[in-house]
Amino acid sequence: MLPQSTWTLQQIAERLKLVMHGDGQHRISGIATLSDADSQQVAFLANPTYRKQLADTRAGAVILSERDASDYPGNCLISSQPYVSYAQLAEWFVPDPAPADIHPSAVIDAQATLGNNVAVGANSVIGPGCRLADNVRIGPGCILESDCQVERDSVIMARVWIGPNTRLGKRVRVHPGAVLGSDGFGLAWNQDHWKKVPQLGGLLIGDDCEIGANTTIDRGSIGDTVLAEDVRLDNQIQIAHNVQIGAHTAIAACTGIAGSTSIGEHCLIGGACGIGGHLQIGDRITLTGMSMVTHSLQAPGSYGSAIPAAPQKIWHRNIARLRQLDKLWRRLKELKKND
Amino acid sequence: MLPQSTWTLQQIAERLKLVMHGDGQHRISGIATLSDADSQQVAFLANPTYRKQLADTRAGAVILSERDASDYPGNCLISSQPYVSYAQLAEWFVPDPAPADIHPSAVIDAQATLGNNVAVGANSVIGPGCRLADNVRIGPGCILESDCQVERDSVIMARVWIGPNTRLGKRVRVHPGAVLGSDGFGLAWNQDHWKKVPQLGGLLIGDDCEIGANTTIDRGSIGDTVLAEDVRLDNQIQIAHNVQIGAHTAIAACTGIAGSTSIGEHCLIGGACGIGGHLQIGDRITLTGMSMVTHSLQAPGSYGSAIPAAPQKIWHRNIARLRQLDKLWRRLKELKKND
Amino acid sequence: MLPQSTWTLQQIAERLKLVMHGDGQHRISGIATLSDADSQQVAFLANPTYRKQLADTRAGAVILSERDASDYPGNCLISSQPYVSYAQLAEWFVPDPAPADIHPSAVIDAQATLGNNVAVGANSVIGPGCRLADNVRIGPGCILESDCQVERDSVIMARVWIGPNTRLGKRVRVHPGAVLGSDGFGLAWNQDHWKKVPQLGGLLIGDDCEIGANTTIDRGSIGDTVLAEDVRLDNQIQIAHNVQIGAHTAIAACTGIAGSTSIGEHCLIGGACGIGGHLQIGDRITLTGMSMVTHSLQAPGSYGSAIPAAPQKIWHRNIARLRQLDKLWRRLKELKKND
Repeated sequence: MLPQSTWTLQQIAERLKLVMHGDGQHRISGIATLSDADSQQVAFLANPTYRKQLADTRAGAVILSERDASDYPGNCLISSQPYVSYAQLAEWFVPDPAPADIHPSAVIDAQATLGNNVAVGANSVIGPGCRLADNVRIGPGCILESDCQVERDSVIMARVWIGPNTRLGKRVRVHPGAVLGSDGFGLAWNQDHWKKVPQLGGLLIGDDCEIGANTTIDRGSIGDTVLAEDVRLDNQIQIAHNVQIGAHTAIAACTGIAGSTSIGEHCLIGGACGIGGHLQIGDRITLTGMSMVTHSLQAPGSYGSAIPAAPQKIWHRNIARLRQLDKLWRRLKELKKND
Repeated sequence: MLPQSTWTLQQIAERLKLVMHGDGQHRISGIATLSDADSQQVAFLANPTYRKQLADTRAGAVILSERDASDYPGNCLISSQPYVSYAQLAEWFVPDPAPADIHPSAVIDAQATLGNNVAVGANSVIGPGCRLADNVRIGPGCILESDCQVERDSVIMARVWIGPNTRLGKRVRVHPGAVLGSDGFGLAWNQDHWKKVPQLGGLLIGDDCEIGANTTIDRGSIGDTVLAEDVRLDNQIQIAHNVQIGAHTAIAACTGIAGSTSIGEHCLIGGACGIGGHLQIGDRITLTGMSMVTHSLQAPGSYGSAIPAAPQKIWHRNIARLRQLDKLWRRLKELKKND
Repeated sequence: MLPQSTWTLQQIAERLKLVMHGDGQHRISGIATLSDADSQQVAFLANPTYRKQLADTRAGAVILSERDASDYPGNCLISSQPYVSYAQLAEWFVPDPAPADIHPSAVIDAQATLGNNVAVGANSVIGPGCRLADNVRIGPGCILESDCQVERDSVIMARVWIGPNTRLGKRVRVHPGAVLGSDGFGLAWNQDHWKKVPQLGGLLIGDDCEIGANTTIDRGSIGDTVLAEDVRLDNQIQIAHNVQIGAHTAIAACTGIAGSTSIGEHCLIGGACGIGGHLQIGDRITLTGMSMVTHSLQAPGSYGSAIPAAPQKIWHRNIARLRQLDKLWRRLKELKKND
C-alpha cells in the first residue's frame, strides 16, 4: 500500500498509465463495485453483464474500456484491459503482511534450511531437509514433510500439507487446506484383494502457480506430477498422479483430472469438469463447466457436454425420451424406408 | 441430556407434546431405527421408503404420523412432524460437551477478546483482534486469522480455518476441515500471464448457519460474500466470492456455486450441482442432484438436468444418437415436408 | 527396502516368482516408466495404451504378460499380473518409515492407551479414551477426538480429523486432510426454520481400508456408517451418514454418496459420480465416471449416464434438440399414424 490514504484521479491515472476523463483533482480513498461505490471510490466495468449499472453508479470514477466510456458522462479512467487496471489499483489496498517471524510454537527440524526473511506461523511443522528460500511465508498450522523445497517469495497460507520431496517454484501461493503431494490412487487387484501400488514419484509446481483451498494434488506413481509455470487452480480441485498441466492453464473449482493425463498450455477448464485418465488435452482448449472428457482433444477451441437445468416436469419427459433415443432413431429409419 | 437414563412413554409424550397410543408406563432408554430398535428404544417413521419396516419392528414405541399410526398396533407417539419430534427426542441423548476451557497449547493473541465460558481446543490459534462472544466453543486445531468475530453460542468443531475479518453470527456450527474466507479465484489476463486480482472483501455468515466438513467459502473480491440466517451447507461445498445465499436455503454435499451469483430464500439445492456465475436464483427453487444452472431462474419450483444411469450398452447407444440429435431433427423435418 | 541397492534380474525373478527371459546377471537399481527407464531400471507394461512404447524403451528389463513378451526381444519378467508384480517390486524402493516416536509437541490425554511402537507426530492431539494398538503411526497435525479405537499397523498420515468413538481396523491408511466421523446433514423443517437432527451414530472402518486426501465420511445418524474390509476411497470423496460399503469396493475421486445408501462388494465406482440416498447398489457393479444413480441397481455389470464432451457448437445444437425431445417424439408418432 502506498503510504497515503487518498489519491487524486490524476495520480491514479499517471501511475496506472491510463487516460483520464473528468476532474483530475477528485480525491479517491478506496474501491468498490459499480452498485456499491460512493463518490470517494473507484469502480470498474469489465463484465458486460454489469454495463446497465453504469447509468446509476455513484462512483467517484470508473475504470472502463474506450467503447464503454463513450456513453459515460462521469469521471473515468480508460483502459484497454479494465480488469487488469482494476487489479493493479486493488493492490494498493492489500494490507501489508505481518512482519516475517518464526512463531515460538512452530516445530522446525534442525536439518531444515531457512533463507532470509522467512516467516513460519504458529504450530507449523517444517520437516528435516526442507529448504525455504528468501521471503517465503508459511502461515499457521502448515506441515511440510521431509525434503520439501520452496523457492523465494512463495506464500503457503495456512493448514496446508506438503508431502516429502515436493518442490514449489517462486511466487507460488497455496491456499488453506490444500494437500500437495499425497499418494495417488494406485491399486492392483491380486486374486482376492487390492494391493496398494507404492507411490514413489514427486510433485513439481512451477513459478507463479496458485493452488486453491482444499485442492488436492497427488505426487507421481513413478515419474512426477508436474504443474508448469503460472498454472492457476481454484478450490477443491483434484489432480491425480502423473498429471501434467501446461503453462498459463486455469482450472475452476471442483474439477477432477484422472491419472497420467496431460493438459496443454493456455487452457481454460470450467468448474466441476471430469477429465479421464491417460488422455492428451492440447493447448488453448476451453472446457465449459461440468463437462466430461473421455477422449484426447487436440484441436484448440471450446468443448462441452453438460446440460442446463430445465423445469423438472419437462426434463423428466425429455429424460424418458432420451432413454429411448436409439429406438426412436431406428423407428425413423424405418419410416424413411417406407417413405 | 436429562439427568436420568430411562423415561416412561408417558413422560416422553408429555415433554414432546405428542398424543400417545399404548402402554404409557413402558420404559424407554434410547433411540434406534425401525429395523434395529429393541423394546427399550423409540424408533420413528418419516420417510415412506421405510413404511414396510413397520410390520416387523421390535421398537418399544414408534413416532409416526396419524395416517401411519392407523395401521400400527404397537405403542406409538403421533406427530404431525415425526422427523422434528424424533430430532427433539434425539437431543436428550447428545453427550454433554466437555467443560469449557482454554487448552494450554492454544495460541491466543494478546489482542484477542474472549467472552465468558469460551472454550479453545488444543493447538488452536486465535489471531489479534478476534472477538469471541460468550459460550463460543473452538475445538482443537482451528485457526482464526486476525479480526474475526464470532457471536455467542457458536461452535467451531476442529481444524477449521477462518480468514481475516470474517464474521459469524450466533449459534453457527462449522464442521472439521471447513475453510471460511479464502481468496476467491480472481485472475486478469495481462498480455502473456495471469495477474492475481487482490481479494479485498469479507465473509458474513448469519445466525444459525451450519457449514459442513471440508466446505470452502471464499470471501468477496470487493464487496462481501454473504450467507443469511439459517443457511445449511453440507460437506465439500464450494461457494465462490461475492455469492449471496438467502435465509433457510439448504445445499447438499459437493455442490459448487460460481462467483457473484445470488441464491434466494428457502431453496433446496441437491448434491453435486453446479451453478454458474453472475446468476440470480429466486426464492423457493429446488434443484435436483447433479444439475447444472447456466441461466437465472426466477419461478419457484423444481428444476433439473441430470440423467440417471442406465446399463452401459444401452447408454452408449443413446449417447451415439444424442450426438446426432440435430441431424435426426433435420431429417424428421424433411420427412414431414414430404409427408 | 532390501539392505542393498542393486539386484540381478535373476534375484528379482526368483523373489517375485516370475519367469525371466534374457540376461539374468543384468544389474537393476530402480524402477521407471517404459518411456523414462534407463538400462539400470525395470519398467512394466500393464495398460495396453502404452504397448507402443515397448518398441523404444531403453529399460533394463520389462515386467509384462506372456502375450506381450512374445514380441519383445529385450530382458523381461513374465507375469500373469504385471501390475501386481510391479507393485511388489516397487515396495523394495519405499523409504523406511521414520523411527516410531511420540513428538514432544503432541497432546496425548492421560486417559488414552497406546500400544507398543506407536508414533504420534508433531502437534497431534489424542483425546481421552482413545486406544491405539501396536505399530499405529499417527502423523503430524492429526486430531483424534475421545474414545477412538485404531487397530494395529494402521497409518494416519497427517492433518486428519477423527470424530468421537470412531473405530478403524488393522492396516487402515488415511491420507492428509480426511475427515472421519463428522456430523451428517440431518435437518428437519420445523414450521419456519431448520432444526438440526442430532447425529448419534458411529463410524466403523474395516481392515485394509484406504481413505484418500480431503475425503469426508459422516458418522451415522442413529446406526453406524460402515466400510467393510479392503474398501478403497480416492481423494475428495463424500460419504454421507448411514452409508454401508461392501468389501473390496473401490471408489475414484470426487464421488459423493448420499445418506443411508448401501453399496455392495467388489464394486468399481468411477470418479465424480453422484449416488442418491436410501438406495441399494448390489455386488460387482461398475459405474462409469460422472454418472448419477437415482434408483437401486441389482444386476451386476456396468452402468453409466455421463456424456463425453463435443465441440461447443455441435453440442449447443444438440442441447437445443434435447430440450425438445418429447415434442420430437410426439411429432414422430403423428407421422407414423399418417404413414
